[in-house]
Amino acid sequence: MRPSVFFYLTYALCVCLGLLCLLFVTYWNSHWRGGFSWDGSALQFNWHPVLMVSGLVVLYGNAAVVYRAPFTWKQKKNTWKLVHAGLMLLALLLSILGLCAVFDFHSGSHIPDLYSLHSWVGICTVVMFTFQWVLGLAGFLFPCSTTWFRSTLKPVHVWMGKAILVLSLTSCISELKYPTDHNTEAKFANSLGILTVAFGLVVFGILSRNKWQRPDTDSESVHVSMDARQ
Amino acid sequence: MRPSVFFYLTYALCVCLGLLCLLFVTYWNSHWRGGFSWDGSALQFNWHPVLMVSGLVVLYGNAAVVYRAPFTWKQKKNTWKLVHAGLMLLALLLSILGLCAVFDFHSGSHIPDLYSLHSWVGICTVVMFTFQWVLGLAGFLFPCSTTWFRSTLKPVHVWMGKAILVLSLTSCISELKYPTDHNTEAKFANSLGILTVAFGLVVFGILSRNKWQRPDTDSESVHVSMDARQ
Repeated sequence: MRPSVFFYLTYALCVCLGLLCLLFVTYWNSHWRGGFSWDGSALQFNWHPVLMVSGLVVLYGNAAVVYRAPFTWKQKKNTWKLVHAGLMLLALLLSILGLCAVFDFHSGSHIPDLYSLHSWVGICTVVMFTFQWVLGLAGFLFPCSTTWFRSTLKPVHVWMGKAILVLSLTSCISELKYPTDHNTEAKFANSLGILTVAFGLVVFGILSRNKWQRPDTDSESVHVSMDARQ
Repeated sequence: MRPSVFFYLTYALCVCLGLLCLLFVTYWNSHWRGGFSWDGSALQFNWHPVLMVSGLVVLYGNAAVVYRAPFTWKQKKNTWKLVHAGLMLLALLLSILGLCAVFDFHSGSHIPDLYSLHSWVGICTVVMFTFQWVLGLAGFLFPCSTTWFRSTLKPVHVWMGKAILVLSLTSCISELKYPTDHNTEAKFANSLGILTVAFGLVVFGILSRNKWQRPDTDSESVHVSMDARQ
């Protein structure tokens, strides 16, 4: 099988799993949790899982692999840097909106913030993501960024990108927990968890395969060609 | 700073975080959960988190990075393959013992098995780990293994290795959840969760940095030198 065919099959699996995650998280919250609203009630809380899975998992994962599609390799890298940064910004905004949903709900229901492991890991993820996005913008899109800064930043950016995905998966799974129920909702929510993890592992698979790495042509990559191949 | 100094500092951080994970999980279960026993009671269950964190996280993470220490690069790769396989086998045995602890406890207390997302992800992790170990033994240690098989297996082995670590972190965090408590035990258990994730991210950092990759000298690596650099 040609490498690009194998890539597109894997990418199709990644897209299907991502869409299933969105479908499952939306159906779960609309069918069993009462639907959506933005009024400080539990219905506002329901936006939290939907926005976090959409932004911090599905959109983030897709944005992470945009450079890997072989059809993009003949196009200018700067175009795809902008697509990558744009999708990541959208993912970040959805995540921040997801945090607003839960903070508003806590405030309306007098529930304290940031008391659980889920919230600790989750807030670390979004802070790290914000830091990564700003640093990525400064290093890879600002024209005044130096080659030294870009080449130093690139392996850190690659590692932090994977770390954020690990953190977002762990924080998602830590909250999708129905240990004592055996009903349909519990099984459905657990299946969403499995789908989320499966999506993350496929994204890791795409990122790990160096044959699918965009050939290095631009200045910072020449300097860090070894580190970029991660 | 010389690359090897940076490696050993990062590795020291990895070892310290791993030891802290072991200390925290043991203290948590002995101080707040009543200690340990092997009699089908809740005290047998307490072995579960200790054995899983020891085997599937700390020992697994350390076994994954053994090839990275620069002092091993001048030594025979086969020696370090055996160290890697031996440590992984120990990690696998501890994990299986950790599963026995929880199945025995469920059996003694008439609790059904495999009903939660934690158990679904956890059992997938151990099954995948077993599969990975057997395949690794057949591919990289059996003398009759062909070069084609080794070179095909290597990128899969590298990806599955990372996938298992992601799964073990998510399954650990999914069970360390004290959402409604604000007491010292909850904070302590949550801190164990943060330590576990931090340990995992440092292991990912070591694995992601190609400067710390053992130079390829053996036969299968020549064929897959690009894929091995992951």
